[in-house]
Amino acid sequence: MPKPKPEPVSRATHGRGVLIVIGGHEDKEGDRVILKEVARRVGRGRLVIATVGSHDPEGYFDTYRKAFKELGLEKTAELYLGDREQAHDPKKLELLEGAKGVFFTGGDQLRITSQLGDTPLFERVLEVYKRGGVICGTSAGASVLCTTMLVRGNGEESHRLGTLRMAPGLGLVKHMVIDQHFAERGRMGRLLGAVALNPVELGVGIDEDTAIVLNNSSFSVLGSGAVYVVDGSSVSYSNIAEGEDECTLSIFDVRLHLLAQGDVFDLAERRPRKATPRERKRLEKLTGGEGEGDAA
Amino acid sequence: MPKPKPEPVSRATHGRGVLIVIGGHEDKEGDRVILKEVARRVGRGRLVIATVGSHDPEGYFDTYRKAFKELGLEKTAELYLGDREQAHDPKKLELLEGAKGVFFTGGDQLRITSQLGDTPLFERVLEVYKRGGVICGTSAGASVLCTTMLVRGNGEESHRLGTLRMAPGLGLVKHMVIDQHFAERGRMGRLLGAVALNPVELGVGIDEDTAIVLNNSSFSVLGSGAVYVVDGSSVSYSNIAEGEDECTLSIFDVRLHLLAQGDVFDLAERRPRKATPRERKRLEKLTGGEGEGDAA
Repeated sequence: MPKPKPEPVSRATHGRGVLIVIGGHEDKEGDRVILKEVARRVGRGRLVIATVGSHDPEGYFDTYRKAFKELGLEKTAELYLGDREQAHDPKKLELLEGAKGVFFTGGDQLRITSQLGDTPLFERVLEVYKRGGVICGTSAGASVLCTTMLVRGNGEESHRLGTLRMAPGLGLVKHMVIDQHFAERGRMGRLLGAVALNPVELGVGIDEDTAIVLNNSSFSVLGSGAVYVVDGSSVSYSNIAEGEDECTLSIFDVRLHLLAQGDVFDLAERRPRKATPRERKRLEKLTGGEGEGDAA
Repeated sequence: MPKPKPEPVSRATHGRGVLIVIGGHEDKEGDRVILKEVARRVGRGRLVIATVGSHDPEGYFDTYRKAFKELGLEKTAELYLGDREQAHDPKKLELLEGAKGVFFTGGDQLRITSQLGDTPLFERVLEVYKRGGVICGTSAGASVLCTTMLVRGNGEESHRLGTLRMAPGLGLVKHMVIDQHFAERGRMGRLLGAVALNPVELGVGIDEDTAIVLNNSSFSVLGSGAVYVVDGSSVSYSNIAEGEDECTLSIFDVRLHLLAQGDVFDLAERRPRKATPRERKRLEKLTGGEGEGDAA
């Protein structure tokens, strides 16, 4: 079946910034490859740790502040919202003034979007991004960066048609559904379910302690786990629109890529590739050793 | 990249029989769609329940005997081996005389192969199959039907190159690696790892309470979960041979199909398809209702 070329995946906004999207449980005490990359990009700037996703943010900020300080990132500040009204509070807005990065911690994606969406505070986050800053999100803070985000769906079982819940996200990434804690919580089923809904969305499942570093045209993989790319552009059949709610998903001809640290995914072409020697060198510098074993 | 057509997947033996390969935890008290299909095929014949996989088979046989009796299958017999020597015991061999089916229950795949492989008893199992009988296996009893079987590998994490353990199986199915408890135990990672080793093997991951009914040229899906078909024939790259043991698997261009009840997979063509109206009718008879919802 000849297929039109899939619409290129590109970021919704056209900032000069970078997104670091983490699958949750990133290493905070050992090699900390992912946080090291965040610290490297923020440099001497200020990183705002947004604990908005959490109902009880106690301790989150301290853990990150300590980890980042040990990595040479001195300037951190906490952004928490008790309610949506505070997203208009000048003191909160000030926190983002001149910031180099924003880091969304985990919790509940709906808490983030319902409090932050369409507020002056979110405008400030976008400005950081547009100025060339780095926006990071881990766990719920990762899902929330999508235009249409995954909110709920069963893990450790195959997808049943009626079980997925999605909602409008912050929209920093478009045409991509990001899922986190991916292999650890057995989420292949629900990601396939999300892609089946509309294959224009590229499914990206990120393991724990694993991240994608996303710029305008591609992303590269960092961390100890894998990133699953579910490309539905050549799907020839699915029962998503014809089955009952309790029906098990059936979908044919999905293209699946499994990327590990160093691998790169080209978003316009929807193609994975290995790191170039130059990219590998940069990675080795970050990981403080070999990027990837290369036996003869 | 032009690719030679993958070698057709076909059964290792050329019996007239059928294999029913179950992902574990098949329903034994409710609708029992899978056991009903076993009972239908065995009919008035004898089904030998082989509890060989279990270190302590206590109770296994009784549960199955009761379930099958309620489904109209009256003649069941238990086959258990205390040690390999018993696989030469004339009394055990007699159990399989004229049997219409053999059902391998769960446990430890190595217990099955190490006790049964290359014995007169296994010859008798093969004879049942060649005569047109039905050979079933659930959980460990499913994996064991392959030529090279998956013995151990981590679930709920992405595959690390050194973690997979495989062994020679009973060889009733060739060019297929079967994994069970698939979505429930998050086993996509290890199945991708097995296919990466040699993409001539078709990866088949079967959920709990789900089965494939396999004949010479195709299989169809039965039960409440899904069957994941991982086709590595168009894989363009993997790091399986170059990475260190603790390295995360990277593999590009896997073709993935997700099949639900009624769907059929053609093994020679490596293509999935929906059930024909005739197949759907047969399925409806078995499930006692609609095979699959078909909304306008």
